[in-house]
Amino acid sequence: MVYLDNSATTVVCPEAIRRMVQVMSEDFGNPSSLHTKGIDAERAVTQARQDVASLLGAKPQEIVFTSGGTEANNLAILGGAAAKNRQPHVAVTTAIEHPSVAACFDELEKQGWTVIRVLPEPDGTVSAEAVARACTADTTLVSVMTVNNETGAHMDIPAIVSRVRKVAPRALIHTDAVQAAGKVWIKAEKWGVDLLSVSGHKLHAPKGIGALYIRKGVRVLPRVLGGGQESGLRSGTEPVPAIVGLGAAAAAVEPFAKQQAAYAHLRALLTEQVRRIPEVRLHEPQNGVPYIVNLSVLGFRSETVLHFLAARGIFVSSGSACSKGKQSGVLTAMGLPEAEVDSSLRISFCRYTTEADVQAFCDALREAMQTLQRRQNA
Amino acid sequence: MVYLDNSATTVVCPEAIRRMVQVMSEDFGNPSSLHTKGIDAERAVTQARQDVASLLGAKPQEIVFTSGGTEANNLAILGGAAAKNRQPHVAVTTAIEHPSVAACFDELEKQGWTVIRVLPEPDGTVSAEAVARACTADTTLVSVMTVNNETGAHMDIPAIVSRVRKVAPRALIHTDAVQAAGKVWIKAEKWGVDLLSVSGHKLHAPKGIGALYIRKGVRVLPRVLGGGQESGLRSGTEPVPAIVGLGAAAAAVEPFAKQQAAYAHLRALLTEQVRRIPEVRLHEPQNGVPYIVNLSVLGFRSETVLHFLAARGIFVSSGSACSKGKQSGVLTAMGLPEAEVDSSLRISFCRYTTEADVQAFCDALREAMQTLQRRQNA
Repeated sequence: MVYLDNSATTVVCPEAIRRMVQVMSEDFGNPSSLHTKGIDAERAVTQARQDVASLLGAKPQEIVFTSGGTEANNLAILGGAAAKNRQPHVAVTTAIEHPSVAACFDELEKQGWTVIRVLPEPDGTVSAEAVARACTADTTLVSVMTVNNETGAHMDIPAIVSRVRKVAPRALIHTDAVQAAGKVWIKAEKWGVDLLSVSGHKLHAPKGIGALYIRKGVRVLPRVLGGGQESGLRSGTEPVPAIVGLGAAAAAVEPFAKQQAAYAHLRALLTEQVRRIPEVRLHEPQNGVPYIVNLSVLGFRSETVLHFLAARGIFVSSGSACSKGKQSGVLTAMGLPEAEVDSSLRISFCRYTTEADVQAFCDALREAMQTLQRRQNA
Repeated sequence: MVYLDNSATTVVCPEAIRRMVQVMSEDFGNPSSLHTKGIDAERAVTQARQDVASLLGAKPQEIVFTSGGTEANNLAILGGAAAKNRQPHVAVTTAIEHPSVAACFDELEKQGWTVIRVLPEPDGTVSAEAVARACTADTTLVSVMTVNNETGAHMDIPAIVSRVRKVAPRALIHTDAVQAAGKVWIKAEKWGVDLLSVSGHKLHAPKGIGALYIRKGVRVLPRVLGGGQESGLRSGTEPVPAIVGLGAAAAAVEPFAKQQAAYAHLRALLTEQVRRIPEVRLHEPQNGVPYIVNLSVLGFRSETVLHFLAARGIFVSSGSACSKGKQSGVLTAMGLPEAEVDSSLRISFCRYTTEADVQAFCDALREAMQTLQRRQNA
């Protein structure tokens, strides 16, 4: 099995599984219980919160656990918007956000907000200049993703924050860092964002856990009401197994310089070979992360190639997993011709990806071209 | 260790842990991915949905997975209310609901709804008659829990539904069945409710997963927006590990008649002994479930006894875990004197509870009375 779809989801690391099994079978108490079992469970949550805070360059009390990246984005945007009761309501976001961000802005628009969606450059990157240009003194909410899930375009969040603060001093600034966390060195506090979302299952924690960084002093209204857990920001018994899974995965993240070198090496191995395939068009953002490769195989629909590869045990994706076969809005927003959009593939690495995996993909892609071409000609 | 706090949370059963580890290390795909890994993950979710539906007497397509009981209650009440756009907006609930239900009605009140909270009888039960009496033709939303989390009072949901339908034909009827699922035979379809919430961690699945039964044809608006998973009702990558954990735990539920007999036996063993302790007042609802025992130890604050027991490895709770030491609103609503409210303890069983566990509790409670009395007199 060659799994190269790590931007869709990752395998859970042994460190996380071990901790999870432990809190499910031994320290299984309810953190709200007053007895020892409860206290032990609460301690496990506290440790995980520290590990996540440390991964994100934040303080533990600035981390709220959510059920995933989607809920973190909903809490940031809809919860942040709900806390802004002064008119006017103007938001700035981009045309390349994940559906869990885009859908929140669609909802705000229904509620009467004005929403401006900044287009990316042709390479897929949204520039700090373009974001700042879309802002005015009235802008209340800004959301720009850190790393795009389809192209790997890496937005310059510190530059965006510093430019936006100048023109829109009262704006809440959020970044969806789901595709960055664990692979890019995130420094929430230093970047200056108000809100930053991450998802566990993109970094070897289980699906069903995420976190929202909320800078000290920033106000958002809760979206899930009840027992008042997570300082009242997210009610519901803490999902201790998933939380310790995220904590363990965060603690197991390898040094970023080492990761970057490993990914750059794998990427070079891949791009050198596929460049020689005449049908291949590589989409390489100027400041792309090395662990996501987006390419089109002209003349072949994404699904056809994807299934050819899957039949050989090689897993990649067409666009993002979330769009489930729908045409990529991101590539369209970049202005790519339809032929490239319809034939795009995403290959994404994780810390378990090997040279042999990449080689197997390159070999199979070459084979795909020959076999599928023959079928088309037959 | 004697764990008698199963209404706060339960240990995760081996069946659930085994399936979870498998989907975290092997079938770890994203159910939205088009390749085999994704399809395998989707299949695991489908199987779990069938197991949960079958536990609840519902069809698989009527089950929406949520991040827990709290989110299920929020989706039912706030999502159900949002779908009711015709005035007037009148809701009927009870004074003994869980905070995750009560907080939603507080929120609806802020939004302009009229909310009527029905008081329980002195034994802790809310009668069908009292609920029906609170309803009129204008009632839009009704929510009555199946089993109370502190007293074990078991409301007659089918009778409530049939009486409410007569006076309030357009009302959505919800029941929070978190304390019932897995221990009481739930027949969602037969009971006739529109919405029914359950939580995984009360029935040996992990914390962080729940489900909402939504009767076919009933409309609720989603509260988490994004990729459109769960038929658009709950976006976010499906928490496959937690979902299969819930499915496995649901499939492992023992026959209800067998369970009832076992719990009744344990309860009799406990009540026979504690009745002989002069300080003990048992609170026994007429139609109480056998697996929750609520009692007061007059003259001793709950926390004092709780910690005495915890120091001996015996875990029970004071009120519900969720209230974390706050005075019980449920016992107060029942009209119990403050001395009984302040000294209440909840002992709750699960399928792993043994006679020896119950005996250890009774012995320790007797010891507590003697030791603590001596301390008070000293």
